Amino acid sequence: MNTEQSGRRRFLKNSAVLAGLAAGAVRPAGASPAGPDARPEDLHAYGERSHFEKWGRTGSVNNPERKMPGEPPDVGLRTPLQDSAGMITPASLHFIVSHGYEPPDIDPQQHRLLIHGLVDRPLIFTVDELKRLPSVSRFHFLECHGNSSPGGIQGPARNALTATPQDTHGLTSCSLWTGVPLSLLLNQAGVQKNASWILAEGADANKHTKSIPLVKAMDDALVVYAQNGESIRPEQGYPLRLLAPGWQGINNVKWLRRIDVVDEPYMAMMETSRYPSVKPDGKSRWFEFELGPKSVITRPSGGQHLRGPGFYEITGLAWSGGGAIRRVEVSTDGGRNWKDAELQAPIARKAHTRFVIPWEWNGDEAVIQSRTPDERGEVQPTVDEVAKLWGADLNYFQHVTQIVGDFNAIQPWKVTRDGSVLNALF
Amino acid sequence: MNTEQSGRRRFLKNSAVLAGLAAGAVRPAGASPAGPDARPEDLHAYGERSHFEKWGRTGSVNNPERKMPGEPPDVGLRTPLQDSAGMITPASLHFIVSHGYEPPDIDPQQHRLLIHGLVDRPLIFTVDELKRLPSVSRFHFLECHGNSSPGGIQGPARNALTATPQDTHGLTSCSLWTGVPLSLLLNQAGVQKNASWILAEGADANKHTKSIPLVKAMDDALVVYAQNGESIRPEQGYPLRLLAPGWQGINNVKWLRRIDVVDEPYMAMMETSRYPSVKPDGKSRWFEFELGPKSVITRPSGGQHLRGPGFYEITGLAWSGGGAIRRVEVSTDGGRNWKDAELQAPIARKAHTRFVIPWEWNGDEAVIQSRTPDERGEVQPTVDEVAKLWGADLNYFQHVTQIVGDFNAIQPWKVTRDGSVLNALF
Repeated sequence: MNTEQSGRRRFLKNSAVLAGLAAGAVRPAGASPAGPDARPEDLHAYGERSHFEKWGRTGSVNNPERKMPGEPPDVGLRTPLQDSAGMITPASLHFIVSHGYEPPDIDPQQHRLLIHGLVDRPLIFTVDELKRLPSVSRFHFLECHGNSSPGGIQGPARNALTATPQDTHGLTSCSLWTGVPLSLLLNQAGVQKNASWILAEGADANKHTKSIPLVKAMDDALVVYAQNGESIRPEQGYPLRLLAPGWQGINNVKWLRRIDVVDEPYMAMMETSRYPSVKPDGKSRWFEFELGPKSVITRPSGGQHLRGPGFYEITGLAWSGGGAIRRVEVSTDGGRNWKDAELQAPIARKAHTRFVIPWEWNGDEAVIQSRTPDERGEVQPTVDEVAKLWGADLNYFQHVTQIVGDFNAIQPWKVTRDGSVLNALF
Repeated sequence: MNTEQSGRRRFLKNSAVLAGLAAGAVRPAGASPAGPDARPEDLHAYGERSHFEKWGRTGSVNNPERKMPGEPPDVGLRTPLQDSAGMITPASLHFIVSHGYEPPDIDPQQHRLLIHGLVDRPLIFTVDELKRLPSVSRFHFLECHGNSSPGGIQGPARNALTATPQDTHGLTSCSLWTGVPLSLLLNQAGVQKNASWILAEGADANKHTKSIPLVKAMDDALVVYAQNGESIRPEQGYPLRLLAPGWQGINNVKWLRRIDVVDEPYMAMMETSRYPSVKPDGKSRWFEFELGPKSVITRPSGGQHLRGPGFYEITGLAWSGGGAIRRVEVSTDGGRNWKDAELQAPIARKAHTRFVIPWEWNGDEAVIQSRTPDERGEVQPTVDEVAKLWGADLNYFQHVTQIVGDFNAIQPWKVTRDGSVLNALF
């Protein structure tokens, strides 16, 4: 080593010491002494929301009067739609309907998806293998078929005068889902001619199982591993979930581990004992799938308070299992006059769509509400129209304890003169 | 009370007891004894990801050699793009470039936004008042102007052979932002004729301040309060942030509290002392704003390992401050041949766009890379072309310690015969 090299080395060393001192002088107490490219856990590796944001999912556990001994409790946790913005639901706030308290704790390295039954080549996939395949990302809402229903899983909160959109419509959420088309997997397995249904099974303690027509499986069903840009959450089916876009939540099997290709529906526990809607005449509707068009104003909405007359944007969400939302109408005078709201991009098929419309509140009592038709022109009914359709009276809907499946009546909110906003369904 | 009523009461009481026992029999240890519509904190009010998901932001703190005594440390935390799906970044994983360790702790009820200076009517808004105004929701990426740059805030990780997309390109993220057009607020205040710039100021300890031309403020700038469907995170500017879509990150002032309408740029600390890019000849470029077109393959990518020959989807992200991504080309043979990748919806202006293309790996060494032109046809250069443009040689870029601002060279990944994927920039 010659003197020049040695001198240069010394210089570098001294610089580093000086630099270290300078950095040390400004390091706050308790802060990480991380180097230029450290990877410590305390560097906000996975961020959190502000402690001022206290709202979250609310919900109900159990419906004791419908329980059998040994049956796991029902959990229904609702998304706070009144605090929503845009058309995406944060994964942390996605609604949960679950038959059991805690999601299964699944190691993705150990998890497998089996496709068998009426196929030429039974297949087993690891999660990593699925991620190598052609992927799609799509916005889709999920919704419990009991969402916005009088009675059932939403309990008494739904019809209360003080109900919020979370109480009335909180069992729906919308995400950007990423995964593999189920048709791709089925084609790889080779579906046999006599197949007509699939049975999808989850890895939860209950082995939730659902019969789904093969035509849906081959149409737009997905096996998803990601939600809003990261792995799906345990509460949403980590590491794999079936997505049956636009269809009742029960079809979107969480913790998906098995798809059995079959030639008839299998009358599994949930689909026969719990999900058919019992009508006032005692008859049930079975094997309903597609969710109808629905909308709800999320601001101003039940539980909020307007600080005096003036300008308020009215905003809300609309969705339909039948396809894309093309139109949302809003009335601010109790349903006499309706105006088209503006729909905000992105407007995706079978996804929440955000609508907005300006409103000048003059301080008088007002009833605001929204309605939407779907791609086929089917429009949301009023609660009176639903009652007629069911051959029931309003009294029935006010006091029913059963879920009224696919209840999509228009949701009115009443703004009182003091600025309070109240549930005005009945 | 008659006997019949009394008997009915007793019956109800007994049923409730039985129901309680049944529910109790299946309640797991430690679970909530919540009633039918309880709102307890332990009901998964705000969900978390699986404990098997350990990846997160990684980063660097400080660049000691560039520090002055008393100056707060630089924090650069990068998004794990190699684990991304779709085109949205979860808020918990959004990149952070910050001059100081911790974000300010702001009570949204106390926070105000002041608009003053060359206006007819100075205005002060609360956050609630902003939420009453006409809102927009838009997908936009944010990016540090030093992202993907050799040297600077990403440190030595960027050029390492083992670099991941997080190391090379992790200072960009994409969200659905909701807020109010800044033009609406400025029009309400009444901008005077001689105004030509705005000064935007944050509520952080450094009072980060940025000069922005009025023409941008009146074009597509937003004052945002929500990100991906919930309030923006403290690390991203809670409760208010300025968004200057497609422009260098420094313009998107976090914790926004003041907009001063002025008639010249103000040469604030960060925009003059730290952000201009120094060229090899010692000259700097000042007041650069718009980010160029850029893309990176996120899978397969540096740090990953392919388990033998076969089918692999190649997927990645592309974005441009100049507008929408119209095209992404992918080469799997070191840049000799290029094929158009498929772009996945939604394709939004100044937003990340997901691209995918199928690839059959034959097991030989392969170099894979992507390139994108923007709306105007400007295309990503190779690193050699950037070097020529700068009048520097590759050696300069390999060893530079300064940030090379807006460095958007094509990022090649080398797949070796054993399946390892390596950074092949140099």
